[in-house]
Amino acid sequence: MPYEPTDYLPYDFANRRHIGPSPAEMAEMLKVVGVADLDALIDETVPRAIRQENPLDFGKPLSERELLYRMRKTASKNKVLTSLIGQGYHGTVTPPAIQRNILENPAWYTAYTPYQPEISQGRLEALLNFQTMVSDLTGLEIANASLLDESTACAEAMTMAQRVAKSKAGAFFVDENCHPQNIAVIQTRAAPLGIEVIVGAPEDLDPSAVFGALFQYPGTHGHLRDFTDTIAALHDAKAIAVMAADILALTMLKEPGAMGADIAVGTTQRFGVPFGYGGPHAAYMATKQQYARNMPGRIVGVSIDSHGNRAYRLSLQTREQHIRREKATSNVCTAQALLAVMASFYAVFHGPEGLRAIAQRIHRKTVRLAKGLEKAGFKVEPDVYFDTVTVDVGLLQRGVLQAAVREGINLRRVGDTRVGITLDECTRPATIEKVWRAFGIVMPDDDFAPEYRLPEGLLRRSTYLEHPIFHMNRAETEMMRYMRRLADRDLALDRAMIPLGSCTMKLNAAAEMEAITWREFARLHPFAPADQAQGYAEVIGDLSAKLCEITGYAAISMQPNSGAQGEYAGLLTIAAFHRANDQGHRNICLIPMSAHGTNPASAQMVGWKVVPVKSAANGDIDLDDFRAKAAQHADNLAGCMITYPSTHGVFEETVREVCDITHDHGGQVYIDGANMNAMVGLSRPGDLGGDVSHLNLHKTFCIPHGGGGPGMGPIGVKAHLVPHLPGHPSTGGTEGPVSAAPYGSPSLLPISWAYCLMMGGEGLTQATRVAILNANYIAQRLEGAYKVLYRGKQGRVAHECIIDTRPFADSAGVTVDDIAKRLVDCGFHAPTMSWPVAGTLMIEPTESETKAELDRFCDAMLAIRAEIREIEEGRIDRDNNPLKNAPHTMEDLVREWDRPYTREQGCFPPGAFRVDKYWPPVNRVDNVYGDRNLVCICPPMEDYAEAAE
Amino acid sequence: MPYEPTDYLPYDFANRRHIGPSPAEMAEMLKVVGVADLDALIDETVPRAIRQENPLDFGKPLSERELLYRMRKTASKNKVLTSLIGQGYHGTVTPPAIQRNILENPAWYTAYTPYQPEISQGRLEALLNFQTMVSDLTGLEIANASLLDESTACAEAMTMAQRVAKSKAGAFFVDENCHPQNIAVIQTRAAPLGIEVIVGAPEDLDPSAVFGALFQYPGTHGHLRDFTDTIAALHDAKAIAVMAADILALTMLKEPGAMGADIAVGTTQRFGVPFGYGGPHAAYMATKQQYARNMPGRIVGVSIDSHGNRAYRLSLQTREQHIRREKATSNVCTAQALLAVMASFYAVFHGPEGLRAIAQRIHRKTVRLAKGLEKAGFKVEPDVYFDTVTVDVGLLQRGVLQAAVREGINLRRVGDTRVGITLDECTRPATIEKVWRAFGIVMPDDDFAPEYRLPEGLLRRSTYLEHPIFHMNRAETEMMRYMRRLADRDLALDRAMIPLGSCTMKLNAAAEMEAITWREFARLHPFAPADQAQGYAEVIGDLSAKLCEITGYAAISMQPNSGAQGEYAGLLTIAAFHRANDQGHRNICLIPMSAHGTNPASAQMVGWKVVPVKSAANGDIDLDDFRAKAAQHADNLAGCMITYPSTHGVFEETVREVCDITHDHGGQVYIDGANMNAMVGLSRPGDLGGDVSHLNLHKTFCIPHGGGGPGMGPIGVKAHLVPHLPGHPSTGGTEGPVSAAPYGSPSLLPISWAYCLMMGGEGLTQATRVAILNANYIAQRLEGAYKVLYRGKQGRVAHECIIDTRPFADSAGVTVDDIAKRLVDCGFHAPTMSWPVAGTLMIEPTESETKAELDRFCDAMLAIRAEIREIEEGRIDRDNNPLKNAPHTMEDLVREWDRPYTREQGCFPPGAFRVDKYWPPVNRVDNVYGDRNLVCICPPMEDYAEAAE
Repeated sequence: MPYEPTDYLPYDFANRRHIGPSPAEMAEMLKVVGVADLDALIDETVPRAIRQENPLDFGKPLSERELLYRMRKTASKNKVLTSLIGQGYHGTVTPPAIQRNILENPAWYTAYTPYQPEISQGRLEALLNFQTMVSDLTGLEIANASLLDESTACAEAMTMAQRVAKSKAGAFFVDENCHPQNIAVIQTRAAPLGIEVIVGAPEDLDPSAVFGALFQYPGTHGHLRDFTDTIAALHDAKAIAVMAADILALTMLKEPGAMGADIAVGTTQRFGVPFGYGGPHAAYMATKQQYARNMPGRIVGVSIDSHGNRAYRLSLQTREQHIRREKATSNVCTAQALLAVMASFYAVFHGPEGLRAIAQRIHRKTVRLAKGLEKAGFKVEPDVYFDTVTVDVGLLQRGVLQAAVREGINLRRVGDTRVGITLDECTRPATIEKVWRAFGIVMPDDDFAPEYRLPEGLLRRSTYLEHPIFHMNRAETEMMRYMRRLADRDLALDRAMIPLGSCTMKLNAAAEMEAITWREFARLHPFAPADQAQGYAEVIGDLSAKLCEITGYAAISMQPNSGAQGEYAGLLTIAAFHRANDQGHRNICLIPMSAHGTNPASAQMVGWKVVPVKSAANGDIDLDDFRAKAAQHADNLAGCMITYPSTHGVFEETVREVCDITHDHGGQVYIDGANMNAMVGLSRPGDLGGDVSHLNLHKTFCIPHGGGGPGMGPIGVKAHLVPHLPGHPSTGGTEGPVSAAPYGSPSLLPISWAYCLMMGGEGLTQATRVAILNANYIAQRLEGAYKVLYRGKQGRVAHECIIDTRPFADSAGVTVDDIAKRLVDCGFHAPTMSWPVAGTLMIEPTESETKAELDRFCDAMLAIRAEIREIEEGRIDRDNNPLKNAPHTMEDLVREWDRPYTREQGCFPPGAFRVDKYWPPVNRVDNVYGDRNLVCICPPMEDYAEAAE
Repeated sequence: MPYEPTDYLPYDFANRRHIGPSPAEMAEMLKVVGVADLDALIDETVPRAIRQENPLDFGKPLSERELLYRMRKTASKNKVLTSLIGQGYHGTVTPPAIQRNILENPAWYTAYTPYQPEISQGRLEALLNFQTMVSDLTGLEIANASLLDESTACAEAMTMAQRVAKSKAGAFFVDENCHPQNIAVIQTRAAPLGIEVIVGAPEDLDPSAVFGALFQYPGTHGHLRDFTDTIAALHDAKAIAVMAADILALTMLKEPGAMGADIAVGTTQRFGVPFGYGGPHAAYMATKQQYARNMPGRIVGVSIDSHGNRAYRLSLQTREQHIRREKATSNVCTAQALLAVMASFYAVFHGPEGLRAIAQRIHRKTVRLAKGLEKAGFKVEPDVYFDTVTVDVGLLQRGVLQAAVREGINLRRVGDTRVGITLDECTRPATIEKVWRAFGIVMPDDDFAPEYRLPEGLLRRSTYLEHPIFHMNRAETEMMRYMRRLADRDLALDRAMIPLGSCTMKLNAAAEMEAITWREFARLHPFAPADQAQGYAEVIGDLSAKLCEITGYAAISMQPNSGAQGEYAGLLTIAAFHRANDQGHRNICLIPMSAHGTNPASAQMVGWKVVPVKSAANGDIDLDDFRAKAAQHADNLAGCMITYPSTHGVFEETVREVCDITHDHGGQVYIDGANMNAMVGLSRPGDLGGDVSHLNLHKTFCIPHGGGGPGMGPIGVKAHLVPHLPGHPSTGGTEGPVSAAPYGSPSLLPISWAYCLMMGGEGLTQATRVAILNANYIAQRLEGAYKVLYRGKQGRVAHECIIDTRPFADSAGVTVDDIAKRLVDCGFHAPTMSWPVAGTLMIEPTESETKAELDRFCDAMLAIRAEIREIEEGRIDRDNNPLKNAPHTMEDLVREWDRPYTREQGCFPPGAFRVDKYWPPVNRVDNVYGDRNLVCICPPMEDYAEAAE
């Protein structure tokens, strides 16, 4: 029989799995869009002038199976030793039920940030549990729903302290016992803000000289100290006291609140979140009620819905930079939601007794370890400690560290003569014996009586985690069902498209996600010796090379662990460059009106002044205004920040000119990579004139959003900026770090790497093209019913489109909010609301959505338009209609129905699934009520009675 | 500070995670039950006389973390080589999205068999897809929803052929090209049934001498043959033709239906289900419409619900042994649902083009491999083949096999001079080169033109998988959402208790499940050399030792891959023992009326006659009747089959006497292990007088039910029976095998092993005790409202309780079915219905359910009783009430409500969650309609329109 060539490629990940529309569907869509083929559409959309010369070539793309094979090989180059390095990172046991049902469950990891509270009640509850846990353990009234890492939390605490302190002193004191990365990140943050950082021993602190002070508790080398008096002295000087506290130690030790601290920060990593070579983990921040409105970060609060039922939501959103814009003083509205959820479940799993028992076990083992060392004649400090001791071994340091490695253990190198040892919940009796052996001690008969070495005055006197949620039955059956119930309350990518403009909610493929829970990637301490992390080196190296190729930059820094961090790091890099060229005075940043809110916030974080640039009528940058402003500030122009394609979703043809003007006036160009999903393979920011860009790996490169974090925002820079990239105490470099760990949240990187490897250059480019097709298809289908704002010269949108809903305010009293909530009835997450233009919806379908899903969405939008028309035409009441009453709940169906439309019309509008209908657990949430009545910890038990039924 | 002993054990798996009620809850429950403590309850429940002497001692139980560490160490002893052994098992690529969203998703793996169709529509749809796939690919009209493995499917086909053949010949012909394990299992099955098995070449077949014949296609050594003429000759002789066909080969090759075959069987393992050292995998069976009602196994069919909407259900359930009992001719109502679901999704993922492309690639590579061998002068047979060739290497055999192992490849040893090679979808170009090298061939420039070596006449002419479900968009986004939608339609353990009596639906802990998807356990071929499977040897060895300790037996055979298989294997063992003692004539088996339906079916499968024994009024075995029957049949008594504690849920005190009587009359005692969850640690069947028992590892030992399989039914035997345990062609033994693979479905064993390791002897015993407490708590709470049947002497039930609902038929016209369906409204899977006593419900909560969940269930049951009382008292209509209309769907809420009770009463009875309400997708399913109008493949597209909305 003759050979029959196989034209169907069953393992083609790009075209079969990642990209939504099939070839046949694309043909239909192109017809609707009105172009001959995809090439023609791209030609009409992406100006020739900005197209890249050479196609991306990453060699043959890997199939899913080949990817996993490759990933295994790479993973095996990471050597997993037992880490007793400590320094803010600890071994921990992730309960398998949490790993399976949260971390490996797309219902949790594909969700978006809970800005739409009605479809986010599940994770909002979990995050409220997190806040309650933090508030209880720190002894402070209010906590946020996580920050990026402990070091940035310290830096945030410093700037918050400056905002709230009545002291007008210009310096911030940092306890020398802080973890080195905390000190370094604070120094990085302080410099451009003109804050003097005084690092010293707490006893040398002069309260009158500072607006605030930070203490580490326990200290990085294990010291325990009661800061009560020091804090009182600070308060007398009207300064603010911040404590960076170990969350687990607080189950046994006097809490920051009891010492009078105003702010507590720390990491919750050791609550069940693996090392991950540095991240992602959730940091926490807690403060006193009086400072609640000054606290950065997202805060989950309790409010009511339109029927007066309890409903969770994000409180005080107006503090966030996308609202404050030029007034923003912090970039941190980014959180680590998925990791905070894990940590909160860890606390629910163990409850206060369990957490305390874990802490006690660790402490008891630490005492045993220390006694063995002491018995053998080693000098162990301090005298009292929780889980960390430091041993002066003099010239033996190198030998002890090496012997430990031979025993399979990493210890911490402290100075040139000391060794640090930090135990954790994974420490086994055998581990202690191995450590002893590394010190040359054989201790066959170990007759140490169990003992505690905690100072009496530092024992915790108060109770914690008394809320019933931490006392629920801890059988796995019950826990599994609780996790499932919460997951079911939320709407994530595993059920429907999330067409959020600028958020790029694309497929997070199972194959991409697999490696992150492998022990070789999960169990590496961020400061493990480099020779044990060769697998990570390979991932970081190869992914960096590919991202350089994609962006046209010379190097990548993986350190920034969010997009906003990327911007900040990028601007710091530019600032360092200017300083190196004796241009340190340059401090003016041109930013178009339409920029992401993070842009001005980032500029202000590096001490620059933001000069806004107007938009032209078509949404483009007003080139005349740009030129004028650049000329006006030529002497002090630090740079400009632009987004490409623009936040209006258009490939502006003037981008090169904008870059040239900036360069001509001595500035550097920051191109925001938020919209890279419209560029990959077609156009490179580096070629357009950009000097720096950040890449949102959690948008364009498939890291899932995790319900509000993690993210990764590495930056790419041109060659002249490479020497000025962020450094890190553990890896060197001339500049300071922006994140706690040298590579940010590296355990996420296998996801983006896997995506690149399986897509190949051609696949990545095709993804971009289809993302553009999908957006234009929606624009085409909605045009007429809605006005599509901002098209390019040839009438095309880029990878997203903005529709104008402002006219309906007058014509029908319908707001953008009404449409968003009505979309919930249709089974959709709303598009981005009122950004970049108030009263509009920005829709980004991404390439991963199929034609059927796009059509379901368009059908829903068109049906909503028809409902609006009914109001316009007076056929239905302006205040009592499906839009105003949206979203509809199952309770609406049960209770008496007295509406001028049917149950059917209310609950099953076009788009809504029938059998598989998603029901929001609450009706429309009252935002004002929640902000007025701020409740940010779990409500009392009575309120849970219903949920328990 | 003084040492504070930690009395809370945070890592205690048994008491913190596995066992539902907390100590405090248990105290409350004991009060309700009315005993001082758990010891007292056990003393009242389990007669002292049958208690075991020594407590179970398995050493210190492992924590979850220690378990995973131990499991990794064990796993690492399995060496994963590339397997080209073939012989019915093939490398395959499990799409990661299927692994994550099905195999690792408790919503799928914790579900029960879909006997309650209203809460099983999701997996019923997936299984209907499976049947459609099998029917299409085999070219036969009807298929079942899987069988245990290919070999047992062959045996089932033989007995089915005997049932339906008009030929009265007594022999069954088996093609010598069948896989050895298929031949062996057929021989095992045939012997006790008096069927002569003729193994030979197809050309030697005498159709008039047989009632049927089985052909392997392709043959075990690769041969391809058109059986059309042979089958026609069989038909002329009124005999039945069976083909065991490779499901993937059928995408390219003429299908069994086109050759006229009456029955096709095979495995679907290579559709994405890992080797697992032999299983579990789903076998298939398809036949002509005319034989539909003679086909064993579960068949999903399409019916309608009470509103006339389409609904899936299991068809023709009356064929199953629990209904047929003494008339049963087969044990196979067991299926491999979870694996069938995986295989069906594999087909949906790839579609016909994808499957065909995969087959083509494999074939093309096989041709290339063969050409290389031929070019080097080796004699390759056959001339035409699909994926398997055999090479005669003479004296080099050993060297080639060893060289292959050095290259990381296992080849098949065929006879003393030949080597078999079977390629699969994992074969890479490098694999072929390695094989060549093992043959001493270096082939640097490989210029073979692609070629096919398939006979023109054997090419497939017909289309397949044309149903739209196999042509849905294959983007992972779409697939993930489809899997989620189906999962959400079903009610499994991850949402609610499944109180099925005799099914022991306990926790399947995440830690227990983790290892089964590790490559070291997943990727081992069942016939891999023993030195590569030392990890499995350790699991099997240690688990066997523990099960021996638990049961009081001398040895365990892991071969039976279901409970029913276990019974069958156990009886075969007894029969072999009798034969060895010249007592081969013994063929009478005493079985109490209350026995599991599988018992008589198993007895008949080994050629025994079943003599039923009466039950006394209290449900116990009628000892007088037993004694009389034993005496009456003394000369021919083969044995008895009893269940302990009895299927009535009582520890009968006479059990030792029953065993003695049996032994006194020359019989052996089979104790059914279905109720082992009431015995572990308290009582050992071996001590009671049992000679053999099977253990349902998928009940007592935590293997999840998978929505209707997999299961594992190993048997334990006393020392005198050890020599007569099942053997296997690949491992030896004097007896024939009962399953395709020597250890059944060994990849499940890490689950049960993990359970034993984490529970320890004390934990296992405590689980038993709490299972008994939970059942007695329910009995106590329901007593009064319902009559609890069958209590022990002191008024206690064992681990389950039976409540009588028969009185309500007269008093209120309410049936057991009405109550079961009403429980769906309350958010529960019904208890076991009408078994072992018609008109009753048997409730088994297991130890894993918390007091809160037990109370939710009892509240629901009491509320239902109150509803019945309303009918009894004439306050609500006998035919239009919440029970008769149950289950209520969301559609009921939407449409006009004209019922004599409120929406609230109908849809939210006590027990039902409010926000987290489970909604069945259909109203009550019409069983009769479905059986009358048998539709067992996917309905046409129009019917899907709704679902697609």
